[in-house]
Amino acid sequence: MEKPLILMTNDDGITAPGLRNLVRFISEIGDVVVVAPDSPQSGMGHAITINNTLYATKMTTVDEDGAKAEYSCSGTPADCVKLGLQELLERKPDICLSGINHGSNASINVIYSGTMSAAIEAGIEGIPAIGFSLCDYTWKADFSHAKEFVQNIVREALENGIPPGVVLNVNIPKLEKHEIKGIKICRQARANWKEKFDKRTSPMGKDYYWLTGEFELLDKGEDTDEWALANDYISVVPTQFDLTAHHSIQQLNSWDL
Amino acid sequence: MEKPLILMTNDDGITAPGLRNLVRFISEIGDVVVVAPDSPQSGMGHAITINNTLYATKMTTVDEDGAKAEYSCSGTPADCVKLGLQELLERKPDICLSGINHGSNASINVIYSGTMSAAIEAGIEGIPAIGFSLCDYTWKADFSHAKEFVQNIVREALENGIPPGVVLNVNIPKLEKHEIKGIKICRQARANWKEKFDKRTSPMGKDYYWLTGEFELLDKGEDTDEWALANDYISVVPTQFDLTAHHSIQQLNSWDL
Repeated sequence: MEKPLILMTNDDGITAPGLRNLVRFISEIGDVVVVAPDSPQSGMGHAITINNTLYATKMTTVDEDGAKAEYSCSGTPADCVKLGLQELLERKPDICLSGINHGSNASINVIYSGTMSAAIEAGIEGIPAIGFSLCDYTWKADFSHAKEFVQNIVREALENGIPPGVVLNVNIPKLEKHEIKGIKICRQARANWKEKFDKRTSPMGKDYYWLTGEFELLDKGEDTDEWALANDYISVVPTQFDLTAHHSIQQLNSWDL
Repeated sequence: MEKPLILMTNDDGITAPGLRNLVRFISEIGDVVVVAPDSPQSGMGHAITINNTLYATKMTTVDEDGAKAEYSCSGTPADCVKLGLQELLERKPDICLSGINHGSNASINVIYSGTMSAAIEAGIEGIPAIGFSLCDYTWKADFSHAKEFVQNIVREALENGIPPGVVLNVNIPKLEKHEIKGIKICRQARANWKEKFDKRTSPMGKDYYWLTGEFELLDKGEDTDEWALANDYISVVPTQFDLTAHHSIQQLNSWDL
């Protein structure tokens, strides 16, 4: 049987340990082609590059992790997927994987996530797709405990297919392997970020701000991704890009428009 | 009665005619405070600025359109909303309006839209929010036919409230006023962009790409935004930021994880 062809990207950049680990884990399953940003793109959401040129440079130095080919791209994660699918891969991939992100993309973070935007872009183009994130923001994060879980999820996705119009948002708690209790299919917890802007004055006398904030969980449901992570489970949220709030169409039809 | 306080932003930049028209339309309804990007941000999706500084400059020259105050911000549309809510407005606004965008944000375009990301950011923070877009990409687009419809939608939203967890995505066809048949509440049409990369070689011999593409509608439903626009209606899609595909949780639970 032909090995599956796997398009891989991320939003922390092509040199990020989370991506290097994912390449190593997944090279055991299929032929991996990496198309990843040449610099960190965290917080980029679903940005695409429409008023600027895009570069993709074939790398020869990073393939020791087992990828068939790797390209470093000047664009966003969504750009990487578009360019990979249209220009760089020789055929339609069997699956697209994004990550492993350094930091959680659970709950409302999915909206700001470059990692998930890449997976969603692939989903829009009809490719099964999964975004992986580890709940550890540090560059030196330990990904080793994730290996078997990640491989298992990818194998199941290749075997069963992912429902059309859906991509998976997988978050992995920062734990030892034996501490992880299993994998839970969840819904996205309601939450937001309580912003705090750190206001400063430049040496030239101009005010500026740093965006900082605190995560505020608004949802105690035991079927949520935040609950799963807090209780030592890996969370899997089926995530869709039909944003229609179907349940409120009727209510809006009562407006006098 | 106190006049409603209205936070206004966009993604085409603070000088864009679409925003200037929206300020004029809405100053008749409430007190408008503009916090808008200092340069065009189209295609920015839900990007936020986390590794860079943010500036907000109070403008004194653009208020002839009727705004109470205007700030030009170095960030993305989502940044503008965060900064406006936290630092620049004296109280929580009654509604947040984004646009009027130069170009459609119907169907899958909602995913890439900076206009809608601003509205969604306000929605996440519990503020009723609406994004407006005109199906005309040109800078010289005529917005005059939109005035009464936009005012009507904003008045109804202020009166009835918008369901929690929902923001409105309003798209306006490029027509004469008398040609518009009315306003339809719709679902987001299934569609994608068929990318075509225009590959070129720089004077220095390096290959680069321009992202171009063609919109591909995959959905003939007469309850969709694309159908409404093609049939001379203004489309209103209730749009949510809970991305969970609730209907596929059961199916995923059959996986061997």
